[in-house]
Amino acid sequence: MKKEYLLTPGPTPVPDAVRLAEAQPIIHHRTAEHAEIFRRVSENLKLIFKTKNVVLTFASSGTGAMEGAIINTLSQGDKALVIRGGKFGERWAEICEVYGVRVIPVDVEWGDTAKPQVIEDCLNKEPDIKAVFTTLCETSTGTLSPIKEYGEIIKKRDNTLLVVDAISGLGACDIEVDNWNVDICVSGSQKGLMLPPGLAFASVNEKTWKFAETSNLPKYYFDWKKAKKSLETKGQTPYTPAISLVIALDQSLKMLKEEGIDNVLKRHNRLADATRAGIKALGLELLSKYPANAVTAVKVPDGIDGLELKKILDNKYGVKVAGGQAHLKGKIFRIAHLGYMGTFDIITAISAVEMTLKDMGHPVEIGKGVKSAEEILRG
Amino acid sequence: MKKEYLLTPGPTPVPDAVRLAEAQPIIHHRTAEHAEIFRRVSENLKLIFKTKNVVLTFASSGTGAMEGAIINTLSQGDKALVIRGGKFGERWAEICEVYGVRVIPVDVEWGDTAKPQVIEDCLNKEPDIKAVFTTLCETSTGTLSPIKEYGEIIKKRDNTLLVVDAISGLGACDIEVDNWNVDICVSGSQKGLMLPPGLAFASVNEKTWKFAETSNLPKYYFDWKKAKKSLETKGQTPYTPAISLVIALDQSLKMLKEEGIDNVLKRHNRLADATRAGIKALGLELLSKYPANAVTAVKVPDGIDGLELKKILDNKYGVKVAGGQAHLKGKIFRIAHLGYMGTFDIITAISAVEMTLKDMGHPVEIGKGVKSAEEILRG
Repeated sequence: MKKEYLLTPGPTPVPDAVRLAEAQPIIHHRTAEHAEIFRRVSENLKLIFKTKNVVLTFASSGTGAMEGAIINTLSQGDKALVIRGGKFGERWAEICEVYGVRVIPVDVEWGDTAKPQVIEDCLNKEPDIKAVFTTLCETSTGTLSPIKEYGEIIKKRDNTLLVVDAISGLGACDIEVDNWNVDICVSGSQKGLMLPPGLAFASVNEKTWKFAETSNLPKYYFDWKKAKKSLETKGQTPYTPAISLVIALDQSLKMLKEEGIDNVLKRHNRLADATRAGIKALGLELLSKYPANAVTAVKVPDGIDGLELKKILDNKYGVKVAGGQAHLKGKIFRIAHLGYMGTFDIITAISAVEMTLKDMGHPVEIGKGVKSAEEILRG
Repeated sequence: MKKEYLLTPGPTPVPDAVRLAEAQPIIHHRTAEHAEIFRRVSENLKLIFKTKNVVLTFASSGTGAMEGAIINTLSQGDKALVIRGGKFGERWAEICEVYGVRVIPVDVEWGDTAKPQVIEDCLNKEPDIKAVFTTLCETSTGTLSPIKEYGEIIKKRDNTLLVVDAISGLGACDIEVDNWNVDICVSGSQKGLMLPPGLAFASVNEKTWKFAETSNLPKYYFDWKKAKKSLETKGQTPYTPAISLVIALDQSLKMLKEEGIDNVLKRHNRLADATRAGIKALGLELLSKYPANAVTAVKVPDGIDGLELKKILDNKYGVKVAGGQAHLKGKIFRIAHLGYMGTFDIITAISAVEMTLKDMGHPVEIGKGVKSAEEILRG
């Protein structure tokens, strides 16, 4: 028996109560029973996004909501500023390019993020930029972006939207969609919402719906106006929803609501702090200049083979962490503290890392990382 | 305690073993463990589609695969022949129009289908038609189309694809994708495959990939070339798959394989025959000229309020059937014999219908429909 521990930034562990909700007998989606559930999850999602505006739900992975954010607001030839400091920033640019949206990139080193002043300068130079695309937590580097500061800049511009990928960030890193002037915020189910993958979300404000009126990019399955209308008039989706996942979402939102979203965020902050302390106590370095509370990216120390480290963590200890992507492959590993996680998930992670490093002959004092983590986790 | 019976043409009942598979602890999708499962389901799906070609799986509802069939093969201004005899035929046309594909409609009465000769004449008249879009079973009317005959016509034309929506048909109505020269066949999870909704499928042949080379319609999430490459090289999907549904699919395909696809089809034929016999014995008429084995559409008899009939079936007897859509609302009701269904689901359906009609004062001999159904179900 090899007991396994999933410590990846998506999918994240799904609580038993959520898995059992998902396994309930299926119900029909054009019924009052389903409409009641769908309206309730749509309302409860607003608490997580901290918005009064509509939150749409789609049967797709998070990328579907990213594509939706572009095709429902922009037109061919429009200019979009895209902040790229990792794989998911790059994805915004890739989707824009597919649709003939002109990308103005702001490239930063992986692990860094764009200074608000840089964004403001770009917008001043090219005032016809229609949207700024960024990430709350760039999953590939564990980096937090200053969304609130971006919002301060963009809110003054009627012709520019702030669009945030909060796929791995939501429910772990604070985002106040309305107070911070985020026009579109997209997310997915398999992260802070403690569900399997298969649902995507988008909070959409009034400013955005004005853009939707003029957008001429083609859309059908991801047509947001249709989704809004169907939700508001009937408590439904235009096309068959992923019913079992919606029912599971109802359960996970109930749990998050009971804990309270700000307590959920505090828990993530505590777990992230403990992880960072444990890692540093082992003499390792973090990749990110602005570490997010969803996932911690750790530089593989010199002389250690990062792929081998990940393999030992998995094969010997049953601990699944994520590796590095693109040019960071083998150079970093990433420990998630995201979703259904508590004190001993962090102890497990740090303990596994220190034992593995010792196994690999790295000069590390085992127990030292766990001790540092415990000091924070007790508090 | 109100015991409920789901007899709708999607979602269909999900077997316990499938629901429990769906509720297993989540695993990561970029692992050998998931790749093994994903490769296995992709192979087993070929048995259901009766194809040697690739079958792609997407996290979306069936409509996502319909959109994919258009955007991965056609270009703006291309001509498409669309057979419209119900809601889902109409959907093909709607999606084409969104993308600037010129629709040449072949409209038939709801409950009817297009004669192969009509299709041949159209193609002779407009030989630059790039694709013919149709449905195996038009869910809104329970009508079967002569796909094999369409295939005979279209296979001779290198510049025309045959694209079939088998969303409700697959696993209930026979379709031999390769032998019948179907170029693209799309389906969804919540019908004959006995799963919750949330997965869409597309079988794609070599002729189609040639169209994909020249197609210039924009696509990202539903990019089929990327999906094929990811499956074939890594046993993965480009974006996070709906992992719990994929694991459930592995279980449902195991069950269908054990029964044998041709036995599955025979079972559906027997259940459909019994349903039709039971309905006719009650003096009711079928809507469709070519009734499909997935769902039976029944005309509401004169003097009976169809919406009220559906309500009594549901509220008094706990039996959920589907009503009519669009102009058939209140005029028909639809009984599914689709997916995880057997003898007593049909007995339940016919029994509920005869009791309800009696309740409503319709001159019906109760027991007579059940008797006729039993005569077939025994055989």
